[in-house]
Amino acid sequence: MSEVYAPRRARLREQTAAAGAEAALVSRPANVRYLCGVAPARSALLLGPVQDVLVAAPTPAWDPGSGPLPEGLRVLLLPDPAADPAATAADLAAADGAGALAVEEHHLTVTRHRALRAAAPGLRLADLGRAVEQARLVKDEQEIACLRIAAEIADQALGELLESILVGRTERHLALELERRLVDHGADGSAFPTIVAAGPHAGRAVHTPTDRRVEEGDFLSICLGADYQGYRCEVGRTFVIGTSPADWQIELYDVVFAAQRAGREALSPGRACRDVDRAARHVLDAAGYGDGAGPGMGHGVGLEIDEDPRLTPSAMGKLDACVPVTVEPGVHIPGRGGVRIDDTLVVRPQADGGPELLTITTKELLAL
Amino acid sequence: MSEVYAPRRARLREQTAAAGAEAALVSRPANVRYLCGVAPARSALLLGPVQDVLVAAPTPAWDPGSGPLPEGLRVLLLPDPAADPAATAADLAAADGAGALAVEEHHLTVTRHRALRAAAPGLRLADLGRAVEQARLVKDEQEIACLRIAAEIADQALGELLESILVGRTERHLALELERRLVDHGADGSAFPTIVAAGPHAGRAVHTPTDRRVEEGDFLSICLGADYQGYRCEVGRTFVIGTSPADWQIELYDVVFAAQRAGREALSPGRACRDVDRAARHVLDAAGYGDGAGPGMGHGVGLEIDEDPRLTPSAMGKLDACVPVTVEPGVHIPGRGGVRIDDTLVVRPQADGGPELLTITTKELLAL
Repeated sequence: MSEVYAPRRARLREQTAAAGAEAALVSRPANVRYLCGVAPARSALLLGPVQDVLVAAPTPAWDPGSGPLPEGLRVLLLPDPAADPAATAADLAAADGAGALAVEEHHLTVTRHRALRAAAPGLRLADLGRAVEQARLVKDEQEIACLRIAAEIADQALGELLESILVGRTERHLALELERRLVDHGADGSAFPTIVAAGPHAGRAVHTPTDRRVEEGDFLSICLGADYQGYRCEVGRTFVIGTSPADWQIELYDVVFAAQRAGREALSPGRACRDVDRAARHVLDAAGYGDGAGPGMGHGVGLEIDEDPRLTPSAMGKLDACVPVTVEPGVHIPGRGGVRIDDTLVVRPQADGGPELLTITTKELLAL
Repeated sequence: MSEVYAPRRARLREQTAAAGAEAALVSRPANVRYLCGVAPARSALLLGPVQDVLVAAPTPAWDPGSGPLPEGLRVLLLPDPAADPAATAADLAAADGAGALAVEEHHLTVTRHRALRAAAPGLRLADLGRAVEQARLVKDEQEIACLRIAAEIADQALGELLESILVGRTERHLALELERRLVDHGADGSAFPTIVAAGPHAGRAVHTPTDRRVEEGDFLSICLGADYQGYRCEVGRTFVIGTSPADWQIELYDVVFAAQRAGREALSPGRACRDVDRAARHVLDAAGYGDGAGPGMGHGVGLEIDEDPRLTPSAMGKLDACVPVTVEPGVHIPGRGGVRIDDTLVVRPQADGGPELLTITTKELLAL
């Protein structure tokens, strides 16, 4: 994918110039990775007037010898582990003749911003804002291909687990087994800590797996995701354990399933993000489960597992084609458990067949 | 441990008052956890003139129903997931009559700092600096007890792995097995991503486990740690695979072992942090391995796996009793591999027997 980074940097440099700054300093790790393919833990990327430089502190967090270096980019490894790469980059920008430097004020701390100003006192500091996050919203086909593979890996790991005996095993062990299977199938790691929630825990949006064992009659919610080349997806399903679900379980499942379908069907280019939330939430509200529905019905995914756009009641903005998002309504009833259904999809126009479902594990209510 | 939080907050409030601010706002997650026992992902802790309030956004990252609430503390869950808890806390401080609010400028971004100023325009903002990090340096016996358990868990996980067959297994699988064993033995999770580095990878300070299989004649470096109730330790060892190590392996091991011992022996209250680095580094230098020695010989551990103090050549400050640190020199020879030996110890006065070794796995060169 190395040929994508230079054009991404060129676009950002054009935007920066249009805003009156000769140089930009990118410090947020996912943004650094988007623009040059790597993101050492303590690093900053300078798009300067005469050169692009990745400045990195010599933490053990990055070994430049461990992989290919970013192309078209100078790499400057600082001798002092305590040095701030951003301050050095500002100094470089000034030395290369920049008058103004746009920085990520939503990422730099007040202390680092001050140090940067001190390192290059002649430089005017401007705000780059969320320009890189904005560029990251719409994915290219290579990025979507990575997400597709990540989703396939998560589906495989989940599918294999469902073929094994679940009763009597703890949430912790099932979560660890899923994470092992993700790596077995080629993931670079989990996209986020795997959630396995049994019985009264089922349906929670976030849950740290416990020693609770899976029992007959439980709802069992599982949410996992793979990281493939930095791209992260998620899939969540809820099952019932035992031969046949109880009536309340079938009823609750049907409601969440209908809400999730309504959310998925609302995904189309040009649609307001809040409409997706509203479509799913309306189904939960109408069935009397609105209170336990949580703050949002989904979010963007990509180099971060939770990125723009937000599918929440207060979200601004509209969906675009080629934006991958999750749709994940859920209901949790304290003391009883609940249901969550979570897919990763890519927004596509109707002419192209509508939203592309990346996570294809069945959403029928399985009794395991 | 709930009785420790209120006194910690009281001490910080005194410091804040002495610096002329009626209120303090703590936003760095490990600092929030230190002061109230929990740290929801998007939260901020206000130590105000009339009340202490933990303000949290309703991300799925924290379910106030999932555990005990912090005592002596009001919890304010914001209705809007997009709201910044820090801005709300500033508003509260102003409403409660504070004239000045000390904030963590080394944690708040420029954008959040500006939003906070806008939320409470009458409030003067000051810098709390690293006051909480400073308070976290010296651990109390309850904290050290958590670290001791974390170390015991890591030792157990490592010890069990060494009893199994290693040849033919991949770095990835060994790392996953270690992480499973950590959880089996009661860890809340890994303290950091487990490092398993075989053959030419051995001895690297940081290494992402690959599909490289363990082979006869390899050096094998393993570094892992447990998180127990938020407290994180680390232990690292290097082994040789096969019946007998080669001469170069024995020689290299002896050098790193001697360097690590020199570092451990330099741990005492009142000693300069850089002296510990110098003691270990001197042994590597004298043997001609100084170039590959890396930027530091150790660091503090606690609620974060890498916290103050730093044991580096440029570190300022002295060690105190009851400060837990790692001592972890290593040498990596490109193409051949290397050795790393890493312990977690607590600085103690000679009168109390000197440094307390928490990670007790043998440091003899084992041929496995």
